Amino acid sequence: MSVENIRIVLVNTTHPGNIGSAARAMKTMGLSSLYLVDPVDFPSGEARALSSGATDLLESAVVTQTLEEAIADCELVIGASARVRGISLELTDPRDTAQVAVSEASTGRKVALVFGREDRGLTNEELRLCHRQVHIPSVAEFSSLNLAASVQVLAYELRMTSLSHEGEASVPEVREYELASSEQMESFYTHLRDMLNDVGFFKSCNPEKIMAKLRRIYGRSRLDRMEYNIMRGILTETQAAVKNLRKPS
Amino acid sequence: MSVENIRIVLVNTTHPGNIGSAARAMKTMGLSSLYLVDPVDFPSGEARALSSGATDLLESAVVTQTLEEAIADCELVIGASARVRGISLELTDPRDTAQVAVSEASTGRKVALVFGREDRGLTNEELRLCHRQVHIPSVAEFSSLNLAASVQVLAYELRMTSLSHEGEASVPEVREYELASSEQMESFYTHLRDMLNDVGFFKSCNPEKIMAKLRRIYGRSRLDRMEYNIMRGILTETQAAVKNLRKPS
Repeated sequence: MSVENIRIVLVNTTHPGNIGSAARAMKTMGLSSLYLVDPVDFPSGEARALSSGATDLLESAVVTQTLEEAIADCELVIGASARVRGISLELTDPRDTAQVAVSEASTGRKVALVFGREDRGLTNEELRLCHRQVHIPSVAEFSSLNLAASVQVLAYELRMTSLSHEGEASVPEVREYELASSEQMESFYTHLRDMLNDVGFFKSCNPEKIMAKLRRIYGRSRLDRMEYNIMRGILTETQAAVKNLRKPS
Repeated sequence: MSVENIRIVLVNTTHPGNIGSAARAMKTMGLSSLYLVDPVDFPSGEARALSSGATDLLESAVVTQTLEEAIADCELVIGASARVRGISLELTDPRDTAQVAVSEASTGRKVALVFGREDRGLTNEELRLCHRQVHIPSVAEFSSLNLAASVQVLAYELRMTSLSHEGEASVPEVREYELASSEQMESFYTHLRDMLNDVGFFKSCNPEKIMAKLRRIYGRSRLDRMEYNIMRGILTETQAAVKNLRKPS
């Protein structure tokens, strides 16, 4: 997996809970490499608690004193920053960033995604160590994402990109049964029309128009074979109820 | 902005901090409509603290007793669920879901994104009230995202989509009529069940199982108001046919 070459670097994090939440966010998206630059409180019980089982990431986390050390072996370093300062880094959104990161990582390069402090982000000095800058497109009036939420968004985009690179569907197939064939659907519509006729539904309306509407309804629904059997069963029972009652008892 | 028609619904949230974090996540992405179904602890100081300034969303949050109330006026209801149960709702990833949600919201329809409990998600009963299901593509071995992190990912995708939609004049419209509301669909299902009972369909099968299957069929189909009227008309005529014939002539 190319995401093995992608690390998350948290710089000078104040709240240990955010480290735990970031680890959890990473693990749900298949990332495992966490670097902590000069964390204020680590290791910590709060980080463990909020990692919600992603303790392996905390235990294998690499703690460094400086950002330089954390990114020393990386070929691509991307800084997450809400603010656009006077630094002319290439600035992209998380989606384009993920494309670049996964594509570089898949060639064997080491990639770092760097997140700054909760209150002040990355310093200009730290941003100068980055090759690119990523900005999560928050609204201007309320732009401060939680640190772990920012990690979650980037990790999610990395996962979406790596799934599409691997040709895996991001969503599994859900239908339990094969779909009803066109032939089955035609026999269903014939049956439905007969039933509606039996209950006297066409007395006051045009059968062609009604059947066209019903075809659209069930056409959109795309019945599977189990559902088809249920619908046929309902038609049969309804006809039987009407017809049996018609017989003199 | 079309996202005004999109609400986030949190069902039976246990930890008030998650409500606050979800409000923060929403606000950074320009969402403002929050519904809370039977929250365990709300209002709460912890929710305020973790909202990090998104207190306006907490103050304007609508609290309801049931999910039905929270989505009564919605035309599109999307349930967030990690697990694929035996429920064949249309299941998509956050990106495709955001496309659908923003596109429907921009035509004036009310859209709900529904998130379940921290530990157990949404019940099957609650998922049956949804038209679609969204799955954040987490890794199989560690699939549990934090509630607010899930809200953040979906809110982010909604923002990405609405930003790309901005400036575009038109959104493809496909349906002639407004869609039936959730409330109308509930009355349809009640009527359908009564009709099936009248024709004796439940003699040999479990009504709950059958109704669950039928909800899936019509949920996928998403009736508009004209179609809804036709279906109600069919049920009424069928019941009349069975009942009138029962009367001694």
